[in-house]
Amino acid sequence: MTDRYATFVQSAAGRALVKRLGLPDPPRLRRFTPGDPLLPAPFVLSGDGRLTDRVRRILLATGATMRDTATDPTTGTAEPAGGAADTTAGAADRRRAANGALIYDATGIVDSTQLRQVYDFLHPRARSLASGGRVVVLGTPPEECATPRQATAQRALEGLTRSIGKEFGRGSTAQLVYVTGDADDGTWVSLEATLRFLLSGRSAYVSGQVIRVGSGRATAPTDWHRPLDGQVVLVTGAARGIGAAVAEVLARDGAQVVALDVPAAGDALAAVANRLGGSAVQLDLTAPDAPARLAEHLAGRYGRVDAVVHNAGITRDKTLARMDPDRWDTVLDVNLSSQERINDLLLERELVPAGGRLVAVSSIAGIAGNRGQTNYATSKAGVIGLVQSLAPALREREISVNAVAPGFIETRMTAKMPLALREAGRRMNSLAQGGLPVDVAETIGWLTWPASGAVTGNVVRVCGQSLLGA
Amino acid sequence: MTDRYATFVQSAAGRALVKRLGLPDPPRLRRFTPGDPLLPAPFVLSGDGRLTDRVRRILLATGATMRDTATDPTTGTAEPAGGAADTTAGAADRRRAANGALIYDATGIVDSTQLRQVYDFLHPRARSLASGGRVVVLGTPPEECATPRQATAQRALEGLTRSIGKEFGRGSTAQLVYVTGDADDGTWVSLEATLRFLLSGRSAYVSGQVIRVGSGRATAPTDWHRPLDGQVVLVTGAARGIGAAVAEVLARDGAQVVALDVPAAGDALAAVANRLGGSAVQLDLTAPDAPARLAEHLAGRYGRVDAVVHNAGITRDKTLARMDPDRWDTVLDVNLSSQERINDLLLERELVPAGGRLVAVSSIAGIAGNRGQTNYATSKAGVIGLVQSLAPALREREISVNAVAPGFIETRMTAKMPLALREAGRRMNSLAQGGLPVDVAETIGWLTWPASGAVTGNVVRVCGQSLLGA
Repeated sequence: MTDRYATFVQSAAGRALVKRLGLPDPPRLRRFTPGDPLLPAPFVLSGDGRLTDRVRRILLATGATMRDTATDPTTGTAEPAGGAADTTAGAADRRRAANGALIYDATGIVDSTQLRQVYDFLHPRARSLASGGRVVVLGTPPEECATPRQATAQRALEGLTRSIGKEFGRGSTAQLVYVTGDADDGTWVSLEATLRFLLSGRSAYVSGQVIRVGSGRATAPTDWHRPLDGQVVLVTGAARGIGAAVAEVLARDGAQVVALDVPAAGDALAAVANRLGGSAVQLDLTAPDAPARLAEHLAGRYGRVDAVVHNAGITRDKTLARMDPDRWDTVLDVNLSSQERINDLLLERELVPAGGRLVAVSSIAGIAGNRGQTNYATSKAGVIGLVQSLAPALREREISVNAVAPGFIETRMTAKMPLALREAGRRMNSLAQGGLPVDVAETIGWLTWPASGAVTGNVVRVCGQSLLGA
Repeated sequence: MTDRYATFVQSAAGRALVKRLGLPDPPRLRRFTPGDPLLPAPFVLSGDGRLTDRVRRILLATGATMRDTATDPTTGTAEPAGGAADTTAGAADRRRAANGALIYDATGIVDSTQLRQVYDFLHPRARSLASGGRVVVLGTPPEECATPRQATAQRALEGLTRSIGKEFGRGSTAQLVYVTGDADDGTWVSLEATLRFLLSGRSAYVSGQVIRVGSGRATAPTDWHRPLDGQVVLVTGAARGIGAAVAEVLARDGAQVVALDVPAAGDALAAVANRLGGSAVQLDLTAPDAPARLAEHLAGRYGRVDAVVHNAGITRDKTLARMDPDRWDTVLDVNLSSQERINDLLLERELVPAGGRLVAVSSIAGIAGNRGQTNYATSKAGVIGLVQSLAPALREREISVNAVAPGFIETRMTAKMPLALREAGRRMNSLAQGGLPVDVAETIGWLTWPASGAVTGNVVRVCGQSLLGA
């Protein structure tokens, strides 16, 4: 479960060897610890759009420091001949003045010829980004744009941010955030939640993503350090691995956690629940009476469930030719069908109140397909379908539904992979390392916040911008 | 421009070595030659949906042979213990009776528990698919489904087909075709066009794709062997490479080709046009008067243009930090903005008649982003935005607009790549080889057919199901 190569590379001896041999160089990621400042260095914000003022106010209120673009010492046109490293005196100044985040409001762009603005902002600052820094480009959802020209330009931003994610390195990440033009109060709360997630170390292993902030009900917390204060959150598959990490992060952020797992995992489950001061539910989710029993438990104990994290999932890998029917049925039922039955009953009994959040766990395999995983990939593609179809259906009830899609995460499951496959999985992403369960947990956590309610219908990959996709 | 490794592997000596050393084994692809039968072996068709009868009639009319599912000798439950190769007598029968295509109509599936039907059809036939065979699953677009349960199950099919594309091997491909429930005459014509493309060798390098067939104007050809008979088709960047291959395929299929390229490529362009009996237009597409000059040429000579293939494109690679503004501007203008100006003027002057088709060339870089290609990836992501925004806007005028997104294609451009990068690009896909310009050309060709008019808003990758994506 540990990436010994990454640990070695981050040692003094390792750094020297990696440089000399040109080996993969996984950077140490900036991960979140309560009390951390939002950013390790000032941010620069620019752009000629409708969001600039709003974002400035949001970020200044977090205590982050803004660097003025007019007097920004981090820019410079010095482009050494032959592409050698920039060793001028000005470059040293710029490194000292490293930026924690480069944020561009591109919502003012209505034609592809205006995309040059984003280049003009990023080109002179490309080398100024601090280690673990953040690039965030803000746009308008193409599907909302008034003209094809505007939609085209807004959609083009995706190619730009994904390329930056692959290019800037040193543990930095790049995201595109589309903010609805029909903004309401919920939009601004959820934009703040999203920026607090993306700029902080919570999003350490999230890069190259496109996130949509819509409108609707979203409630800011009294204290952004406890974004889940007083919230009842159910986590399935919580006894170990990613599920246990989710339970832990949610409890840290103030939630009352209802930890659920199969009876066979009862001891591990009890340990998680006790440590977090939550409650434990032993239940086989595929049992015919599971939805009713779960609903009764939640109704009796809490009267509601503010957020549900459908994390329980299994693999039973075989090629389709060699796959017995039981492997198909079990994986589909645990990963998808049981989740549908539970959602339907909790919603039917109105146990998820207005403002509630559902979060499901998909997978890169659900996006790209995978050899030997027809069953798993079908179930995880179905989870994406569930999110995309339930999101509009639940809009009226003000309930959000999103998914995360983990890439290569260091767990007991990946520790069992053959070495070559494991190393390929670890390195074939922009951060050149596998993620940790906590990275998935932090992303799920953000989507369970009441403040994130206007983020719905999203599938957010937690994959270090894996090369794999569709 | 040749893949010597693939040539070697397909030799007798090469085959022996590859087997012994466990090297990548690029299969010989089944490519199209005029007069080929649609399939190299019978197809099996099953499913409990609204399309089964229609597809049966379409395929029988092409002369293809159907194998009855009831008496199908290719099925068998023989699953040798320990997963060894199936050497039973029954297996030999099944190999002799190899299937050219496995086609499942999954439109009847309204709940994830029913996905088992597709497993039941494919599992016993997984080993029966002929070399270069085809798997096609037919579904209903999730966004049209009546219930979230149905949408979820239909969306899940994507994970299944993409996994099959990665699993079945031997030059076979797998696709998911979503056919609108609001079908009209155009739907059936375009479904036939799409099946004729996907089942034939024309789609040799297309796998793991999701294609949507909608409704609207689509006209079947008098003779399916000349699907572009009498059509005037403009191809930009036609002097060499992929553009020249496009011009050739279109002319072969009956089109009058208008071949366009920059004046500097005039000789090569004239050679292409002369060989194909088409006309040549020398024009710098980024010139301010280019759209008007092009419109006047088309109006004067043909009075119309039935289809436009926007193939012209350039790369000017550099990391963003090292990219001078000219590299940004030129790439964006050639690959995206000039295309928008030309579309707008041709449409404004009504030179593209009802039933016309626009086809643009995007790229995997536009989908996934690429290091050192912020400019190119932005322009190619913009092309996707252009397709997605123009498609609904042009529906009323009955003009379709689609894009292809090539992966690693053997061209002069890729021949110049460093060896390691080139080999990685060639092998990191389900077919373990690079595509040829003709593969992109055949895919573009299909989208320019009058019969494909009800296929609109699609971005179809021609990448052998490259691992790369987003």
